[in-house]
Amino acid sequence: MSSTWGNQIKLSIFGESHGPGIGVVLDGLPAGEAVQQEELLLQMARRAPGRDKTATPRREEDMPEILSGMLDGRTTGAPLCAVIRNTNTRSRDYSQLKNLPRPGHADYTGMLRYGGYNDVRGGGHFSGRLTAPLVFAGAVCRQILARRGVFIGGHIYSIGSVCDDPMDPAAVTAQLLNELSRQSFCLLNPQAEAPMRELVEQARMEQDSVGGIVECAAVGLPAGVGSPMFGGVENVAASLLFGIPAVKGVEFGAGFAAARMRGSQHNDPFYYSDDGRVLTSTNNAGGALGGITTGMPLLVRVAVKPTASISQPQQTVDLSKHQAAQLQVTGRHDPCIVPRAVPVVESAVAIAVMELMKEGGRL
Amino acid sequence: MSSTWGNQIKLSIFGESHGPGIGVVLDGLPAGEAVQQEELLLQMARRAPGRDKTATPRREEDMPEILSGMLDGRTTGAPLCAVIRNTNTRSRDYSQLKNLPRPGHADYTGMLRYGGYNDVRGGGHFSGRLTAPLVFAGAVCRQILARRGVFIGGHIYSIGSVCDDPMDPAAVTAQLLNELSRQSFCLLNPQAEAPMRELVEQARMEQDSVGGIVECAAVGLPAGVGSPMFGGVENVAASLLFGIPAVKGVEFGAGFAAARMRGSQHNDPFYYSDDGRVLTSTNNAGGALGGITTGMPLLVRVAVKPTASISQPQQTVDLSKHQAAQLQVTGRHDPCIVPRAVPVVESAVAIAVMELMKEGGRL
Amino acid sequence: MSSTWGNQIKLSIFGESHGPGIGVVLDGLPAGEAVQQEELLLQMARRAPGRDKTATPRREEDMPEILSGMLDGRTTGAPLCAVIRNTNTRSRDYSQLKNLPRPGHADYTGMLRYGGYNDVRGGGHFSGRLTAPLVFAGAVCRQILARRGVFIGGHIYSIGSVCDDPMDPAAVTAQLLNELSRQSFCLLNPQAEAPMRELVEQARMEQDSVGGIVECAAVGLPAGVGSPMFGGVENVAASLLFGIPAVKGVEFGAGFAAARMRGSQHNDPFYYSDDGRVLTSTNNAGGALGGITTGMPLLVRVAVKPTASISQPQQTVDLSKHQAAQLQVTGRHDPCIVPRAVPVVESAVAIAVMELMKEGGRL
Amino acid sequence: MSSTWGNQIKLSIFGESHGPGIGVVLDGLPAGEAVQQEELLLQMARRAPGRDKTATPRREEDMPEILSGMLDGRTTGAPLCAVIRNTNTRSRDYSQLKNLPRPGHADYTGMLRYGGYNDVRGGGHFSGRLTAPLVFAGAVCRQILARRGVFIGGHIYSIGSVCDDPMDPAAVTAQLLNELSRQSFCLLNPQAEAPMRELVEQARMEQDSVGGIVECAAVGLPAGVGSPMFGGVENVAASLLFGIPAVKGVEFGAGFAAARMRGSQHNDPFYYSDDGRVLTSTNNAGGALGGITTGMPLLVRVAVKPTASISQPQQTVDLSKHQAAQLQVTGRHDPCIVPRAVPVVESAVAIAVMELMKEGGRL
Repeated sequence: MSSTWGNQIKLSIFGESHGPGIGVVLDGLPAGEAVQQEELLLQMARRAPGRDKTATPRREEDMPEILSGMLDGRTTGAPLCAVIRNTNTRSRDYSQLKNLPRPGHADYTGMLRYGGYNDVRGGGHFSGRLTAPLVFAGAVCRQILARRGVFIGGHIYSIGSVCDDPMDPAAVTAQLLNELSRQSFCLLNPQAEAPMRELVEQARMEQDSVGGIVECAAVGLPAGVGSPMFGGVENVAASLLFGIPAVKGVEFGAGFAAARMRGSQHNDPFYYSDDGRVLTSTNNAGGALGGITTGMPLLVRVAVKPTASISQPQQTVDLSKHQAAQLQVTGRHDPCIVPRAVPVVESAVAIAVMELMKEGGRL
Repeated sequence: MSSTWGNQIKLSIFGESHGPGIGVVLDGLPAGEAVQQEELLLQMARRAPGRDKTATPRREEDMPEILSGMLDGRTTGAPLCAVIRNTNTRSRDYSQLKNLPRPGHADYTGMLRYGGYNDVRGGGHFSGRLTAPLVFAGAVCRQILARRGVFIGGHIYSIGSVCDDPMDPAAVTAQLLNELSRQSFCLLNPQAEAPMRELVEQARMEQDSVGGIVECAAVGLPAGVGSPMFGGVENVAASLLFGIPAVKGVEFGAGFAAARMRGSQHNDPFYYSDDGRVLTSTNNAGGALGGITTGMPLLVRVAVKPTASISQPQQTVDLSKHQAAQLQVTGRHDPCIVPRAVPVVESAVAIAVMELMKEGGRL
Repeated sequence: MSSTWGNQIKLSIFGESHGPGIGVVLDGLPAGEAVQQEELLLQMARRAPGRDKTATPRREEDMPEILSGMLDGRTTGAPLCAVIRNTNTRSRDYSQLKNLPRPGHADYTGMLRYGGYNDVRGGGHFSGRLTAPLVFAGAVCRQILARRGVFIGGHIYSIGSVCDDPMDPAAVTAQLLNELSRQSFCLLNPQAEAPMRELVEQARMEQDSVGGIVECAAVGLPAGVGSPMFGGVENVAASLLFGIPAVKGVEFGAGFAAARMRGSQHNDPFYYSDDGRVLTSTNNAGGALGGITTGMPLLVRVAVKPTASISQPQQTVDLSKHQAAQLQVTGRHDPCIVPRAVPVVESAVAIAVMELMKEGGRL
Repeated sequence: MSSTWGNQIKLSIFGESHGPGIGVVLDGLPAGEAVQQEELLLQMARRAPGRDKTATPRREEDMPEILSGMLDGRTTGAPLCAVIRNTNTRSRDYSQLKNLPRPGHADYTGMLRYGGYNDVRGGGHFSGRLTAPLVFAGAVCRQILARRGVFIGGHIYSIGSVCDDPMDPAAVTAQLLNELSRQSFCLLNPQAEAPMRELVEQARMEQDSVGGIVECAAVGLPAGVGSPMFGGVENVAASLLFGIPAVKGVEFGAGFAAARMRGSQHNDPFYYSDDGRVLTSTNNAGGALGGITTGMPLLVRVAVKPTASISQPQQTVDLSKHQAAQLQVTGRHDPCIVPRAVPVVESAVAIAVMELMKEGGRL
């Protein structure tokens, strides 16, 4: 496993879904930063299952215990470790996984990688539950960043074929992002909620699942941060975002749509704002040129595949009998994880921004 | 700058477009690996400008001199350094860049990041020319990988709205990839060439440029390689791919299309092949589950924005006069870099695969 | 803080002496490795205070709870996290530290580095207590290494001017090291114990402390491991060993004594052993040439400064009043930490060896 | 090989003694830093062989060509690459090395590590010649550091049993270090030169060699730099210093002598200087407490083993015949490399200080 990430801000995530606990160590935080507990819990709650109709009924408490790195409500500069206990685990649901790998899951590849010794219960270290410590770490970073004028928020860009309004990459504001980052079913256009929920419910009824796209922006980043070629904004963010289970694509600014654009259309013209800052009138770049922040909003979209755990019968192999087999996944699973993925993506972006700003001497 | 990459295979790229030279250090290669010079030159030639009608008329020699790490045609295990001299540079074309940043380029962000001291001539270290050492490094790795049964090849998935046939992610073969990886205008369907060239030529005529998508596959990877959460196949590959100038999106397998799929459709059913291997009948995962290789082809698509250098007038700012300005970029530029980006993407994938295989003890 | 270490085996140590808990995350361990709990506790006990007359009377339980990475007594391949609760802390002893930095301690430098926000109670993250998770991590690694024939053990080379017999670097055996690594006051010559204890007791009586040297060897390392120039045996080991509080010097083989030797005396002649292996008749190299293991025992000596906490009055400054001050450190402190440092040094060597062997594809 | 080092300042050294060239890439330097060519050459000359009676008669030109990262005499912020061509190589001297490994050299371990494919000529990548690019990199860093008030200098602490005066760790000045850092046979007490040279000459006459100790200090470091536990001053410096061939020990401040000291003697009392700074009246800590700079001089001593290449007959093995053999090393070798090691140690310290200061946001 390599669940350790970062050069300036070192993130180490540990835990398995049905082991004693999961958690995170964040090393390299600035000292003296106030961290509001309620704000942490709010972000944890946005990710937690069972808070919303689209989510699994399993309720976690997800109350992290901070073991180190905090004193009197402020960071000490020493590594911050937080632990979340695993409770309410029903391990029997997973007894057949060793022999019958679930399609779309890491059961088979995990078995190869770890010689069958990995903890398969609930997906083990591959579980989406491991995003809880990521959200915790992100929530800590977001408080530190907010104090420096950097705000991050995302929304459900789409679920299946139902789309929210897109963010305006050149006009997104801190206020909008702050509002989004306190919601649990984040949308720009509230009218998208009903058809999205309907789509998810339909998938659930059909023992199926559905994917979607999360769009996330960060505003207030200082211009001039990021280190090309491989320490650029996109490299750093993507190397973290692809660590979120189910993420299969990452794009910045116009992203894949840029492939169908003309240069005259894609290039963002520079202009002076009324208060004398250099801005661009469009933001197809998504806030970075040459891997370095332009000062315009950082804009990223992340493709989330449909939940791999579906309860309809699926074709797989029986590894013990070396023959074909049919599998029916039981247990509780979200038919769509996209709403809960929003705070996870926001968190990954927050951590990436911390890394970039610290590297650039701006933290 | 952070043009150093990798944990197992350490890649360090240096150079500026109009400085004395560019090059690469590759540290961590296995010793005793034969490296065919002609094969290196073939790959360099695929990327080099001026070899094809869609490319800029500037001809580079791009003959790398190997300074270390090779003896009698084999790697020694010591860091391999190769240097490419810069010749045929016309620096006068870039005299106005300091004051008039080109839209879509890193002129403005580079100035901020490096206090105006960066070499702006030809884009300096941000230049697409820096992909030459990347291709060199990739070409070395590809020879090492081929000896282990791993083959990599890509094609022009699309230019603008003109698409090649997509790769069949479950059926792509080493033979096909080898054929592709020796071409300069790589296509699965040769009939796509004419409309693509036409599109590019039209853009050129209109002093404009056009983007596209590169699709790349790797076959023969051992199953069970990759280290979640952040050392997974996608994280490692993306952190390198986003270092290629103009890349704005990276997706694996079904990628963003997965967002519109149902789980029952996206999950790849496992089956036993006739020779007893575990395969999947589809490959929406793109060769990785949980960040670990499945043994199926690794499939990645990369969005390439339209060339930022276009010769039609553009709006920008004059940083010396603090006012709006119009800019007309002169010099020689490809109206479409997608064809030349194919070997660059292949190279990045090759280096990423080396890193992953070495980390997994499979090199 | 940068309490994260390693490329192949990633070690992340967290905690403060008087916070809720301390612990460690070990990422990159091979899966399926049996870990005996008793063996872990034995090593923890060797380091724990209060087990021996030379140590502080404060008794910790030091019972680590394993939160992740273990299932049914074996490593899962996922990050292994262990937590040790802090109990029996008397924080009042440290109330004056914020203003009166203790000479020889990190109170002053920590205050500068962390703007006064670091947890100074008990030394916080700088406390020698942070070596407990290091010993835990080392004890896990030692069990894995033992299964591969690698054994590590150390002894008290000297306390003050009283010396134990030195190890014979060319003849040290696994059996000897195993015996040493189960003792709490490790000596080759038992006759050294009485004068050493006398020296320590005398220092205690005089409200003073005394330093010493730990010597540690590892046998059974495969020859050919280590990556010069900066990934060599000495670099990797030293970068970890200097993380042990109070370590001020590290030497390998003949070490500083080599500076007074002739080449003809220092060079270790090669010969064939009766069973056909290439050995050296002496081992001034300490088991590494060019940063790469020779197959001979790895031999390292580590200088441990006298405990900085002494109860006699000392000159310092009062940072609040900007004037000279006298300080009398209260609380419980070892007059000599060298005996307890032996398992810490062994642990650091074990972790370094794991890193080196994994990097060399030998794990 | 892992000749890549650093997190903030990335150093990549390449080359083999008798290959086409050697060199270095330095990534992460601040932009806009003036670099005086003459100053670089001065430092290169101090290390170069053949400039002094104690050195080998082989004369290198050692004129580095800067390929990138410099424009108009200033750093651009892009990776700085410098190449030194190898000339005047007499490869025939090394023909027997493949079968008869030289005692004290990396011939045998290199063969194991690289399967016999490493370039053994002149020691290949293990050659002391590889310290030339290190000195180049150090010389660049020293100019950048000097501009920030940090000065580094060293001297021959001892050759064999002949000692120079030691530095006064609490009183060493920038002026003294600057003087030392322009000499080629660096001594505090000029009267040590004659007996040292005599000792070396005697060793040469006896076809032997002799080791020594280099002492190096850095003054002007800001207090509060360094990141415990593993990113501390000592860890960072040692991980680099042990990459210098022939280094077998590294100690800071009182170092190994601390092992024989009492706490009351070793602890450095704090006091306020007349200008209101917090200083220590002694400096046994060597400038770092808890891995963090105190603001007092950084003091390090490095043990250099006697040159392994001696021309008297030595016992070794014949790997092709699997039998004992006698070896007589021919070619030109320094009987003592300690004088030339001084600028190398200074350079390593300079690079380490750059890394530490950048990590601490002080560059």
